[in-house]
Amino acid sequence: MAPIKVYADRWSQPSRAVIIFCRVNKIDFEEVAVDLFKSQHRTPEFKKVNPMGQVPAIVDGRFKLFESHAILRYLATVFPGVADHWYPADLFTRAKIESILDWHHSNLRRGAATLVMHTALAPFLGLRPRPEAAKQAEKLLTQSLAMIESVWLKGDAKFLMGSPLPSIADLSLVCEIMQLEALGDDTRDKFLRGHEKILAWISNMKKATSPHFEEAHMFLFEVKEQMQSKKNVAAAAAAKHGSETSSLLKIASKL
Amino acid sequence: MAPIKVYADRWSQPSRAVIIFCRVNKIDFEEVAVDLFKSQHRTPEFKKVNPMGQVPAIVDGRFKLFESHAILRYLATVFPGVADHWYPADLFTRAKIESILDWHHSNLRRGAATLVMHTALAPFLGLRPRPEAAKQAEKLLTQSLAMIESVWLKGDAKFLMGSPLPSIADLSLVCEIMQLEALGDDTRDKFLRGHEKILAWISNMKKATSPHFEEAHMFLFEVKEQMQSKKNVAAAAAAKHGSETSSLLKIASKL
Ligand SMILES: N[C@@H](CCC(=O)N[C@@H](CS)C(=O)NCC(=O)O)C(=O)O
Ligand SMILES: N[C@@H](CCC(=O)N[C@@H](CS)C(=O)NCC(=O)O)C(=O)O
Repeated sequence: MAPIKVYADRWSQPSRAVIIFCRVNKIDFEEVAVDLFKSQHRTPEFKKVNPMGQVPAIVDGRFKLFESHAILRYLATVFPGVADHWYPADLFTRAKIESILDWHHSNLRRGAATLVMHTALAPFLGLRPRPEAAKQAEKLLTQSLAMIESVWLKGDAKFLMGSPLPSIADLSLVCEIMQLEALGDDTRDKFLRGHEKILAWISNMKKATSPHFEEAHMFLFEVKEQMQSKKNVAAAAAAKHGSETSSLLKIASKL
Repeated sequence: MAPIKVYADRWSQPSRAVIIFCRVNKIDFEEVAVDLFKSQHRTPEFKKVNPMGQVPAIVDGRFKLFESHAILRYLATVFPGVADHWYPADLFTRAKIESILDWHHSNLRRGAATLVMHTALAPFLGLRPRPEAAKQAEKLLTQSLAMIESVWLKGDAKFLMGSPLPSIADLSLVCEIMQLEALGDDTRDKFLRGHEKILAWISNMKKATSPHFEEAHMFLFEVKEQMQSKKNVAAAAAAKHGSETSSLLKIASKL
């Protein structure tokens, strides 16, 4: 069978979740890079894959699908080699996983993604700062982290809901939290400090999906490094305007 | 078997989706009213049902579940009497429904719910107006409606994805769109005008779930009527401060 195509940008947290899932489960796939910073998600070609113009999206033969959670469910169901713990057949366990996945969108994701956009990214995107949006996002992120810790990582839970092995909900949420790296070490620590259970859980997820976790996050750490020296980058941007050499310059010019 | 308990507020669009689903599918349930305007979702009792303090939530024996989409999936799976079209067993059809359900959260729901909050509700809630948030929400709502029409209601589709019968995705999205009633007829029309397919689809959904659709939405229309005479209500609020006689006074005082 032809490998599935995974349209992804490694900067995108749900894209990374899908890539890690495929690698860990030895699903044969071809990664098609859709560079958000080059606006490749807005091309007519990509709109044929996902009319919403977002990554991730997959194509499996004639079947097209977008939304990372829907993709993860589909892959877990269609590939018989995927171990049950990722998306358990048991009705009750599955329902609890669905509940976490649904909760994610308007809580952890909305908080974390909006915050990253309106703080770390804004200066490079030439975005008009919206401190109000950043403040609301910060509040939502703080609440969301507290909820993950108190509701789903109770006791010595290794993974969400006390499971000994991870599910697609663990993967989705962890990839979102990893995006906080883009805020820099101090800000990331400000949010995660005191959340010992979340820190242990991130480390459990890394181990459970190593080395694919680290590999999928390499690009994020590269961008982070560039952001940390952002003054230099800003200076470079002024000097080499229009250049394609730095991801950050690309972000600044294309989004 | 004991009936399941559905914790709901009829003002809440995902609560209405769950209630309509139960009624249409003759699922035996007891509705437990959680009055958001009386902050009943913030009580320690309710937090035992849903630690997130939101409606809807269900309790089925010892099993508790929150998030309307997770609840709808669970009910469709656990009750053998529910017809397949609501949540099809077919892998590909189901995946497409999941994609719509996931998309909903950060698009139609985020747009519509935020807009209703920051326009129609704000004056009654004593909320500091956030015109910026309302503007962003309006944009997202407009885009979302256009996408529903062009991506999922192509051709003469009776329901989403051209299905002849509705799914839980139809139900969730339609209940969200109905919330636009709270904006008043003119503003609702401003958003829906020109979207002939969406208007036909809403009407199809009403017919497919009648009379439960109308029954579940009665409260929304009552509140809407009160809002339309809001000048009177505001005057009444000033006169009868602290009174519990009007839902709007309750909104104003409790949220
Ligand atoms: N809920 C979606 C979110 C997809 C999403 O927001 N993708 C972002 C990157 S992380 C994107 O493509 N943004 C470009 C745009 O929205 O224009 C999922 O989980 O797949
Ligand atoms: N994604 C959730 C949304 C639940 C939700 O936002 N419920 C609102 C009413 S529509 C609520 O309980 N709000 C009270 C609060 O958040 O404090 C679902 O579909 O169930």
